[in-house]
Amino acid sequence: MASTFLHCKTTASISSITRLNLHGSSSLNIPMKVNMPQNQSFWATVNADIEAHLERAIPIHPQLSVAEPMHQVIFSTPKSMASALCIAACEVVGGERDKAIAAASAVHMMHVAEFTLDDNQLSAQQKRKSMVQDIGIARFGVLPLGYELLATSDNPMGNNSEKILRAIIEITQAMGPQGMVDGQYWKMQCKGSYGDELCHIGWIDHVCEKMDGGLCSCGAACGAILGGGSEDEIKKLRRFGMYIGMIHGMMKRGIDLGRVENEVLEMVEGLKTLALKELEYFKNKDVDALKSLVDARVSQF
Amino acid sequence: MASTFLHCKTTASISSITRLNLHGSSSLNIPMKVNMPQNQSFWATVNADIEAHLERAIPIHPQLSVAEPMHQVIFSTPKSMASALCIAACEVVGGERDKAIAAASAVHMMHVAEFTLDDNQLSAQQKRKSMVQDIGIARFGVLPLGYELLATSDNPMGNNSEKILRAIIEITQAMGPQGMVDGQYWKMQCKGSYGDELCHIGWIDHVCEKMDGGLCSCGAACGAILGGGSEDEIKKLRRFGMYIGMIHGMMKRGIDLGRVENEVLEMVEGLKTLALKELEYFKNKDVDALKSLVDARVSQF
Repeated sequence: MASTFLHCKTTASISSITRLNLHGSSSLNIPMKVNMPQNQSFWATVNADIEAHLERAIPIHPQLSVAEPMHQVIFSTPKSMASALCIAACEVVGGERDKAIAAASAVHMMHVAEFTLDDNQLSAQQKRKSMVQDIGIARFGVLPLGYELLATSDNPMGNNSEKILRAIIEITQAMGPQGMVDGQYWKMQCKGSYGDELCHIGWIDHVCEKMDGGLCSCGAACGAILGGGSEDEIKKLRRFGMYIGMIHGMMKRGIDLGRVENEVLEMVEGLKTLALKELEYFKNKDVDALKSLVDARVSQF
Repeated sequence: MASTFLHCKTTASISSITRLNLHGSSSLNIPMKVNMPQNQSFWATVNADIEAHLERAIPIHPQLSVAEPMHQVIFSTPKSMASALCIAACEVVGGERDKAIAAASAVHMMHVAEFTLDDNQLSAQQKRKSMVQDIGIARFGVLPLGYELLATSDNPMGNNSEKILRAIIEITQAMGPQGMVDGQYWKMQCKGSYGDELCHIGWIDHVCEKMDGGLCSCGAACGAILGGGSEDEIKKLRRFGMYIGMIHGMMKRGIDLGRVENEVLEMVEGLKTLALKELEYFKNKDVDALKSLVDARVSQF
């Protein structure tokens, strides 16, 4: 089954690129302790701005009872790195933060929709909040709300619609059946532990590419598009997001499965090299905050 | 509880408009027999075109196992009137059918997402197809796929992005927490039969406005926008869609609850008058197919 699964991959997948670029690094036994990233204050500010935007955009209307469980779902889901990457990518290409704040919020909604789909995660995080009965509806509502936030963020002259539409396409493709939906499908197939026939290195690789990598890639690309980046900048930041998402996804999922084998660590090292390579293009810009994300020890953002 | 619920409504809701326009018609005891609409061949062609577009747009990739349950969910869900209305509205304002076919397909996906949310409907329709285990993922995937179909439908010159973005906004608002998500929330509250405290006339009215009305209204507006309609045409067709959706929603939900009281029939009569009034604006156009939808006896499209 695992080999069938590996054969299912597209020929030019990230995984194949990764393997071609693997370095036999001697520093594979990195400590598993979870540290805070450097540039923490930058990321803290970015996340606070996204949260403030979401609070303004999604008030609790007393008239609409469904708004309350939705609000709870949106604000109780842990942040992903992808939303913050969206803002950072926008700023790196010279855009102002407010250009990307709606997209960053939409990316958070996509993460919320995926997060709440997994009842195991829900039981640990959100079931405590007595919102079980409305969770299905709230989960159903966050996706259109995310698209709405982004689609209605055009300026009053309506002359930014092309960029916004492009960002919507990035998000739909990252979310859809060739993106996170596929990752979610495969994630659900593995209910066992790492080492089982299906929960193989190929499984971690594929799920992380489609889920963690896909979301961060899409976040970074959206930020670069809306910030007015060139095609080259968009492409490089999209790839940077993919590598960063995969690095943290592989570490997290590896840890969750109880083992981080050398094979996982080798792949992570390769991804780090690739991520740093993408940043070389921006050598005249301040990319310290982005660079700090390459630290694989940060398993939670 | 029912009175609290009624107080929750916005002041300028469709329901209040409807009631102001109610006619004390003597023809309230209309037969409940389900007939096929007039202009059946027009609607059959429209639906066949939408289905063909979906078949082309959503092939089953043997590489992606999640594609199969998604395909089944999309094609086994009964059609709603909203997608066909999208095409018809586009043509009424002078647009060619292919201008609205992606939006009509996206509207179908929204309907699928809502339809599959209700496990009661699922058990009757789709559980027979042994797809229960993947239904959650498939349901999660249809929304981004619908937005993707629409967002990527721009012409090669990319100069239709403003209209497409506007259609996306129509869909997100119809789907979101002030639209179908709110309707779904209230629909779930009523698990009893008509006449219970909560499953009151106000409940049917509100749920139909947010769900059946909202989806048809959005379908018609999207078709008019993409077909190049004027602001007046868009407004009239959006309202026509709302009335048509509510007419059929109220009849269907009334029947499902086991009773169609005079109060429901009175409201339906009022909605029919309002729907026909909107069509007067298009007196120089061929609106026979649209007019045929006013027939409340057609409870399934």
